[in-house]
Amino acid sequence: MSTKLEQYRVRIRTELDRVVDFWLKYSHDTQYGGFFTCLGKEGKIYDELKYVWLQGRQVWMYCRLYRTMERFRKPEILEAAKSGGMFLQRFARVPSSSNPWKCAFCLTRDGKPVKVQRTIFSECFYIMAMDELSRVTEDKDMQAEAEQMMSQLIHWVRVDSSGLGRPQLPGDTPVNSMAVPMMLLCLVQQLTEERGQEVAEKYREVGDWCVKQILQHVQRGGTAILESVTTEGKELPGCQGRLQNPGHALEAGWFLFQYGGLHGDQALQQTAVDKFMEVPFLSGWDKEHGGLLYFLDVDDYCPTQLEWSMKLWWPHCEALIAYLMAYSQTKDSALLERFSAVYNYTFSHFSDPENGEWFGYLTQEGKVALDFKGGPFKGFFHVPRCLYMCEQILDRLLDEQI
Amino acid sequence: MSTKLEQYRVRIRTELDRVVDFWLKYSHDTQYGGFFTCLGKEGKIYDELKYVWLQGRQVWMYCRLYRTMERFRKPEILEAAKSGGMFLQRFARVPSSSNPWKCAFCLTRDGKPVKVQRTIFSECFYIMAMDELSRVTEDKDMQAEAEQMMSQLIHWVRVDSSGLGRPQLPGDTPVNSMAVPMMLLCLVQQLTEERGQEVAEKYREVGDWCVKQILQHVQRGGTAILESVTTEGKELPGCQGRLQNPGHALEAGWFLFQYGGLHGDQALQQTAVDKFMEVPFLSGWDKEHGGLLYFLDVDDYCPTQLEWSMKLWWPHCEALIAYLMAYSQTKDSALLERFSAVYNYTFSHFSDPENGEWFGYLTQEGKVALDFKGGPFKGFFHVPRCLYMCEQILDRLLDEQI
Repeated sequence: MSTKLEQYRVRIRTELDRVVDFWLKYSHDTQYGGFFTCLGKEGKIYDELKYVWLQGRQVWMYCRLYRTMERFRKPEILEAAKSGGMFLQRFARVPSSSNPWKCAFCLTRDGKPVKVQRTIFSECFYIMAMDELSRVTEDKDMQAEAEQMMSQLIHWVRVDSSGLGRPQLPGDTPVNSMAVPMMLLCLVQQLTEERGQEVAEKYREVGDWCVKQILQHVQRGGTAILESVTTEGKELPGCQGRLQNPGHALEAGWFLFQYGGLHGDQALQQTAVDKFMEVPFLSGWDKEHGGLLYFLDVDDYCPTQLEWSMKLWWPHCEALIAYLMAYSQTKDSALLERFSAVYNYTFSHFSDPENGEWFGYLTQEGKVALDFKGGPFKGFFHVPRCLYMCEQILDRLLDEQI
Repeated sequence: MSTKLEQYRVRIRTELDRVVDFWLKYSHDTQYGGFFTCLGKEGKIYDELKYVWLQGRQVWMYCRLYRTMERFRKPEILEAAKSGGMFLQRFARVPSSSNPWKCAFCLTRDGKPVKVQRTIFSECFYIMAMDELSRVTEDKDMQAEAEQMMSQLIHWVRVDSSGLGRPQLPGDTPVNSMAVPMMLLCLVQQLTEERGQEVAEKYREVGDWCVKQILQHVQRGGTAILESVTTEGKELPGCQGRLQNPGHALEAGWFLFQYGGLHGDQALQQTAVDKFMEVPFLSGWDKEHGGLLYFLDVDDYCPTQLEWSMKLWWPHCEALIAYLMAYSQTKDSALLERFSAVYNYTFSHFSDPENGEWFGYLTQEGKVALDFKGGPFKGFFHVPRCLYMCEQILDRLLDEQI
């Protein structure tokens, strides 16, 4: 067993080094600050737009690596993170917006807003970036800024979303969309991590609320995780109501498992494993070609998303984290088997032995369909977060066995 | 030659009958009016949302068939078209919008607005529907309504787009997007067709402006049609600037060819053939698997659209119309060869011999990837318009040869 785990660790560690090298080498904009994320298979920049989600995520990931992994405590990583943080602080918020906290979705290379989404996600990744960067730099103002934006986010989600700019339409009934409580829960964990009792208590009620919201997505007598439900936790009609997103469910799974662990909630951890890790595998794993499908309809209609049958890198990253995290605590060999299945598919299909980093988008049959390493939605985030977390978990597992 | 053309006509005529039957049988909402368009491979309704584009298109197509093809002059087609028209008049415009002409993108089954796009396309298909329906019913008020909405559209496109609700952002520079002048030109032809000299003159300047705007998309010394250019007709930076959409170019091709024919502009017709019909075939035809690719990057980078390599039904429909229309006038056998190549791929891959109608979405290799017959973007429009126009063109061609 430990031989197998050691093999995983070696490969994952090597892979993380290669992925970090790739982004250090190709993604830094030394002229305007921040990061290029549209990088071709060999690292060539094919578009200069700067997506705020990806700027925030890269700052967060660099800081996390710098702060918690000895071998990444390098000046160039810290400097790049700071440059990204400054870029965000200068340009992410939209000056013309009626709300001072609203962030753009996409900026020009020199920081002019191109597009604003009427959702909360740019702001989420801004908060993640600022909180993590403030931990490295010990910048209390920055930490306070992250918390202030978090208050605004909670207000948009729980009190009044009108500031996001979406028109209120009679047919557009409020929806509990998995992404929202997931991201808020992720932020609660980010903001409270090792900050002491007072901060933990400040966010405890929001954290618990997020968990409840996520659990509403367990439907059909516990046999399905649905991506969108009503705010009362009932099924929605039509395609929207029947949509399953196995990668999202798995990601929610490890968020819940981690939260349950922090708060000694074993029942929640069991639900995370049984419902958010096992159910999406049973529905989402492609028995013919391997890999996790991107979208599914719970009643087996064909999803209307053109990419439904493609294999995307990020659900596989989230699955690896989920199964290894759950295994490391439960030692249930079935979970390690799930990890192995996903690991084998992932490393043989997504990782590019030639130029480094991972491809992001495969056909159902496993052929590379889009050959770039970074794009409008793929940056320095899911792959390194997965490798970083799996390496840490494997370190602990192997330490235990000595 | 005429044997071949006769074979095409027989198949196309039979196919049109089957397609009309499919929608007559499965798509009518006899309770609330309008049409269901989310229809599974056997016609089963899998979602009840009503997309305004598709409601307008189905009204237009029904009226066009009723008005111009003897065998479709049936009461049930007229009644369905009227029901769709009434549904649109009652529900398409968003009551809460600051502009009385703004239409929703998507409605609930009973007509409540779900989503509003910040573009002009719902309004375009509303105008098409109303104008064509007014021709059948001789409703002058309806015709006037179509023209009034057209004035608003022209204002949004040429004078001030702020009424569409998009925030003005410094990084979001104005773009000449192919779809906009294409749709306006299509509407000019719709509104002026056989309406006499006065109406023709009213829209002549707009029509000529649309042609100029479309011609700005001929780039790279005439070797590429780019989907988006600056308002001065220059290339835009990045992915957006390099994007090619062969199906759109081909559709613009027959719009231009038709407009050139109406106004005795042979040079425009030649440009339509050389640039908008031949160039997209050279860049967009998949030499390995056949069929037209959906998106391409003019510099051979990988497009960021996940579906770039899929084969969609509508570019093939537009190609069939374009090549046959141009052949019928020029008698250039190279154009008939293009038609044949597209015809062979299309009828062997998209048409469903089992349950009727066409599949809409294939993998690059030609396998059905999404098996429904109608969805949020596929209704009763591209397939029947193609079959209807090709049948009419073949009728004329074969008549000439007798």
